[in-house]
Amino acid sequence: MDKPGVPLQGAYTTKAVRELVGSWRLTHQTVALVPTMGNLHQGHLSLMEIAREHADRVVCSIFVNPTQFGVGEDFESYPRSLADDEALLAEQGLVDLVFAPDDKDIYPFGVEAAVRVSVPQLHGELCAAGRPGHFEGVSSVVLRLLGIVAPDVMVLGEKDYQQLVLLRRMVRDLQLPIKVVGGSIQRERDGLAMSSRNRYLSASERRTAPKLHGELKRVREALLDGEENLRALETEASRALRAAGFDPDYVEVRRAGDLSRPNGLESAGDNLIVLAAAWLGKARLIDNLRI
Amino acid sequence: MDKPGVPLQGAYTTKAVRELVGSWRLTHQTVALVPTMGNLHQGHLSLMEIAREHADRVVCSIFVNPTQFGVGEDFESYPRSLADDEALLAEQGLVDLVFAPDDKDIYPFGVEAAVRVSVPQLHGELCAAGRPGHFEGVSSVVLRLLGIVAPDVMVLGEKDYQQLVLLRRMVRDLQLPIKVVGGSIQRERDGLAMSSRNRYLSASERRTAPKLHGELKRVREALLDGEENLRALETEASRALRAAGFDPDYVEVRRAGDLSRPNGLESAGDNLIVLAAAWLGKARLIDNLRI
Repeated sequence: MDKPGVPLQGAYTTKAVRELVGSWRLTHQTVALVPTMGNLHQGHLSLMEIAREHADRVVCSIFVNPTQFGVGEDFESYPRSLADDEALLAEQGLVDLVFAPDDKDIYPFGVEAAVRVSVPQLHGELCAAGRPGHFEGVSSVVLRLLGIVAPDVMVLGEKDYQQLVLLRRMVRDLQLPIKVVGGSIQRERDGLAMSSRNRYLSASERRTAPKLHGELKRVREALLDGEENLRALETEASRALRAAGFDPDYVEVRRAGDLSRPNGLESAGDNLIVLAAAWLGKARLIDNLRI
Repeated sequence: MDKPGVPLQGAYTTKAVRELVGSWRLTHQTVALVPTMGNLHQGHLSLMEIAREHADRVVCSIFVNPTQFGVGEDFESYPRSLADDEALLAEQGLVDLVFAPDDKDIYPFGVEAAVRVSVPQLHGELCAAGRPGHFEGVSSVVLRLLGIVAPDVMVLGEKDYQQLVLLRRMVRDLQLPIKVVGGSIQRERDGLAMSSRNRYLSASERRTAPKLHGELKRVREALLDGEENLRALETEASRALRAAGFDPDYVEVRRAGDLSRPNGLESAGDNLIVLAAAWLGKARLIDNLRI
C-alpha cells in the first residue's frame, strides 16, 4: 500500500488538541476522529485507513475510559501501551494526531459528578444485559471526545456493533454535524476477531477462541439455507459454544440497522446480523457476522 | 435606550438555523443563544440585551420542552404565544433570529427514545426534590439547542438559579467552548419576580405573591444582621409563607457558587444566596436573592 507518511503529533490535553485542530479549521481542512482505548492492533489500523479516506486530518484518541468498566471488570488490568501505540501509528503514517488525555482532562469534575449521557435504545439488551452502565460510560466519554475534537467524521469498528449503533443514534439524536462510519472486523488467520482482550487467553483458550466465529458462520449458513427458526439456531449455537468451553452471554439474530428483533425471516428485505458474546477463561469475547 | 434595530428573522427547523448561523460564521461573527419557552416578558428581554452585549448575533429559541414537565405539571396549559413573542422581539430590535422548532426537530426519534443528559450535581435537592426528572429534561433539550445553534455565549436568567448552576456545570464538564452568562431577575414594581407562570395567579393570589420576595429579603436582612442559625431562618420563612397562604416546597440558604450547603456563616468568604419555591394556588413560584 502506498503510505502518505503523515508525521505524527501528540497532544495530551484538551487545550493542545483544540489549538491544533483549530489551526486546521482555519484552512478549512476536515477532521476524522477514531476513538480507541489504545493497545492498537491491525483492527484499529484499518479504521485509521478509513478515516484517512474520509478527511484531510486524522485524530486517534487513546483513553482507557473508567466509566465504561463495571465493578469487577478489567479496568485495572486493561493493557496500556501508549509508547508502542504511538510508534505503531508513526510507522503507519496515516494519523496526524494522537490525543491521549488523562482522567482529569475528560472528567474535570471527577467521575462521580460527571455529566452522564444515555441512549435508551436497546436498554438491557445484548451486551447491555451483562454490562450494566457500560454503554452509558461509552456515550458519556465519546460525547466529550466529539466536543473536544469537533470532527466531521467519526470512525468506529463494527466488532463493537451495538456500540456503533448506539453512538450513531446519539450523534443523530443530538443532531451533531458528524458522519459516523463503521469499519469491518479484522480477523486473525483462523477467524478470531482481533481484540485487545485476546491477550487474556491462555494458549489452549486461544486455540478454542476461533470457534466463536465458527458458530456465527454456522448460523449464517443455516439462515442462508432457509432455516426460519431463529430461536432454535440461537439456542443450538449457545449449546455448541458451551460444549467447546465457552460461557456464552448470548447468541442472537437481529436486524442489522437498529438491532431490533426480526419477526422471523418472513420480511426478507431485512438486513440481518448474528451477534454473540461469550466468556472464554478471563476474556469476554464478542463477534458478529452480517447475514 | 438606543435600539440597534436589528431586523428579526425566523427559523423553524434545525436545517434553517444551521444555514443562517453558518453564513454568520463564514464572516467570523460571534453568536449568543438565549433559550426560552416563549411567552416573553421583560425578564426575557433583559437577557436579549445581555446577549447583544456579548456577541455579534443573537438567537432566541422558543420551545416548550415536553421532557422537562413532570406528570401532572402544566405542559398542556403552559402559555404559547409565538406570534406575540415574535412581534415583541421584532419591536425590541435586539434579536437576529427566532428559532422556534417543533418536537420532531428537537426529538427526531421521539421523546421516549431520546438521548438523555443528566447532571448529577444537586440530585434530589432544591427544585429537583419536587420535580423529579425536570433538570434532566432541561439539560437534554439545552444540549440539543447548543448543538444546533453552536453559540459562543449562552445567556440564562438567574431566576432559575439552580438551572443556571446545572447548565453551567454541563457546559464545563462536557468542555463545550461556550461561555454561560447569567442575567439578573427582573421584578414587577411590588417585587414579584417576573415569570410566565404569574398568569396562573388569581387577583387575590397576585396581591399575595410579592410576599415570597419579601420573605427572602427578611432572610437576607437577618443574615446581614449577623444571624447565624440558618436552619431557624429557613423554618421561620417557610412558616411565614404558609401563614400568608403559600404552600412552600423549600426556603434554603446555600452557597451561590455551586448551591452546596454552607457550614453556617463561619466561612465569611462564602457568597451566599437564599432560594425559595412555593405554590400559590395553581402557580409554583420560585425566587432567590443574593446575600
